[in-house]
Amino acid sequence: MNKRVGKQTIELKTKPRIIATTSVVGPKEGEGPLSMYFDKILKDDINGEKSFEKAETSILIDSIKETIFKGNITEDKINYIISGDLLNQLTATNFAMREFKIPFLGIYGACSTMAQAIGIAAMLIDGNFAEYTIAATSSHFSSAERQFRMPLEMGSQRAPSAQWTVTGSGSMLFGTKGNFPFVKYVTTGMVKDYGVKDANNMGAAMAPAAVDTIKQHFLDTGRKPDDYDIIATGDLGSIGRKITQDLISEYGFNLGKNYIDCGEEIFDHDRQKTHSGGSGCGCSAVVSTGFLYKGLVEGKFKRVLLVSTGALMSTTSSLQGESIPGIAHAVSLEVGV
Amino acid sequence: MNKRVGKQTIELKTKPRIIATTSVVGPKEGEGPLSMYFDKILKDDINGEKSFEKAETSILIDSIKETIFKGNITEDKINYIISGDLLNQLTATNFAMREFKIPFLGIYGACSTMAQAIGIAAMLIDGNFAEYTIAATSSHFSSAERQFRMPLEMGSQRAPSAQWTVTGSGSMLFGTKGNFPFVKYVTTGMVKDYGVKDANNMGAAMAPAAVDTIKQHFLDTGRKPDDYDIIATGDLGSIGRKITQDLISEYGFNLGKNYIDCGEEIFDHDRQKTHSGGSGCGCSAVVSTGFLYKGLVEGKFKRVLLVSTGALMSTTSSLQGESIPGIAHAVSLEVGV
Repeated sequence: MNKRVGKQTIELKTKPRIIATTSVVGPKEGEGPLSMYFDKILKDDINGEKSFEKAETSILIDSIKETIFKGNITEDKINYIISGDLLNQLTATNFAMREFKIPFLGIYGACSTMAQAIGIAAMLIDGNFAEYTIAATSSHFSSAERQFRMPLEMGSQRAPSAQWTVTGSGSMLFGTKGNFPFVKYVTTGMVKDYGVKDANNMGAAMAPAAVDTIKQHFLDTGRKPDDYDIIATGDLGSIGRKITQDLISEYGFNLGKNYIDCGEEIFDHDRQKTHSGGSGCGCSAVVSTGFLYKGLVEGKFKRVLLVSTGALMSTTSSLQGESIPGIAHAVSLEVGV
Repeated sequence: MNKRVGKQTIELKTKPRIIATTSVVGPKEGEGPLSMYFDKILKDDINGEKSFEKAETSILIDSIKETIFKGNITEDKINYIISGDLLNQLTATNFAMREFKIPFLGIYGACSTMAQAIGIAAMLIDGNFAEYTIAATSSHFSSAERQFRMPLEMGSQRAPSAQWTVTGSGSMLFGTKGNFPFVKYVTTGMVKDYGVKDANNMGAAMAPAAVDTIKQHFLDTGRKPDDYDIIATGDLGSIGRKITQDLISEYGFNLGKNYIDCGEEIFDHDRQKTHSGGSGCGCSAVVSTGFLYKGLVEGKFKRVLLVSTGALMSTTSSLQGESIPGIAHAVSLEVGV
């Protein structure tokens, strides 16, 4: 029984359930507009650790442990963890995995990692490869800033189009039974590169990928923008969101008031001086495990399309003059029939 | 129908077929003992590009294009590429993906990437999510050396336990039909860290993960070492191979003459001065797509267990005094019934 719907989408008829989720965020995210939806807000973003990298690992561990606890199951019942992060060689994740006796698949999709992890975690359930899986990711402002941009001590001025890496970790536990929100469609993206070279304008670099995946999702499923209560890209920021809205209208799809961007929602940009918006793997992870999942559970939303977007450069590639490839993966999170 | 066999293994009853494979290697690998099994040997490891990073991207593109050509299908029939590499933020792979209009899942498992990619690519076929998938990876001595170790120009002396990153890319095309070698079992590994901190002795860091996954594969499937014509770890090198052989005997499994390590096989270490052996994502990729796959097709082998092993550190984590987590994933590649 072929599960393919159109060119890039699959339909999961068994409805892999999202049994529990956890969002852990840093202090700045905890002062933002989505504060009330997060499970845990750190008092200090170093979280009692000796480095920001270790702090990132610690919030990922926290988030996964809390999700397992909420799911009321034990670690040995979980067949796979799918997780990744922004650090070179996924060290935040790889070091976190030392704490779990669970088979592990490391993935990298930059800030698209959460939707990619959800897609794989849901497919492993739907394909009868697993009874329980976990999708997770993390990012940390300070570990990302000093890896990708400038030493923190320099206090560099930021370009208005720059984004602010979210300190946060989100995780989701998937299973086969129960009355929980579920994943119906998974639309896997292709790499798109329209030649943007400015790493301070990632929204513009990722927008064509977001447009391509959203458009294809509608074409594949026959759904329209209005079929979703929320369409959430993440994390294009305010600049990338406007580009996406403009470009997709050329394909005849109008994204209206139900269209938000996780990076734009998570901070109050004027007050918090986060410029174009939040970014980082953790951004769409905490918005989806916090705001979106809770909205589904509470019946505020019936259908949500999460479209996590990734900018696939490294510091080496940018210094070598390469443009920034973008990718976006979409998953529909739903309740009801 | 649950496909789980034991704790960490799944059985793919539909036998996802490996329709075609390609191995592209650098000049040094082309002078090694497995030379005759590689499809393409570069004359110059920069491959006409302006940087070693671009050269790595170019061999990954070459390898995938050749595999699609050999499979006698067109790009639009392929539902997913699963690929990753050693470079920060997977840039070798991400830049290669600009050349393909194929949905893409980026993964990172350091040198375990090939077995991880094969496992996911085969599961996507078996779960009816795809008709055709590609698993691929690459590594390049010069891009890895300057990222992880020292500037090439320094000509640093190497520790006897150090390994030599393979310049190479391997790819496999999976499909549902035909009389080809297939994947039967996928055993997904957990992260194991026994405290080794020496990045010049990755074999020792990865050996406990290899032992754990191989032992679990036997326990899960009920198979014994003798049930395989070849058990190939990759890439522990000669030191890691000996440790693995010793440690696994404590579980009552004796790995005999049918046990090889991809990193040990690919070079003639005395003549080629590669010390403990080859390493890099490309190592088990070119050995499996070259030597192992061709052995299966020619009937020399009936059952092969590929156990790719990864050392999950970054330069930052090693400088911060962290030990090296290891992981190993196993896939059984078979012919016959």
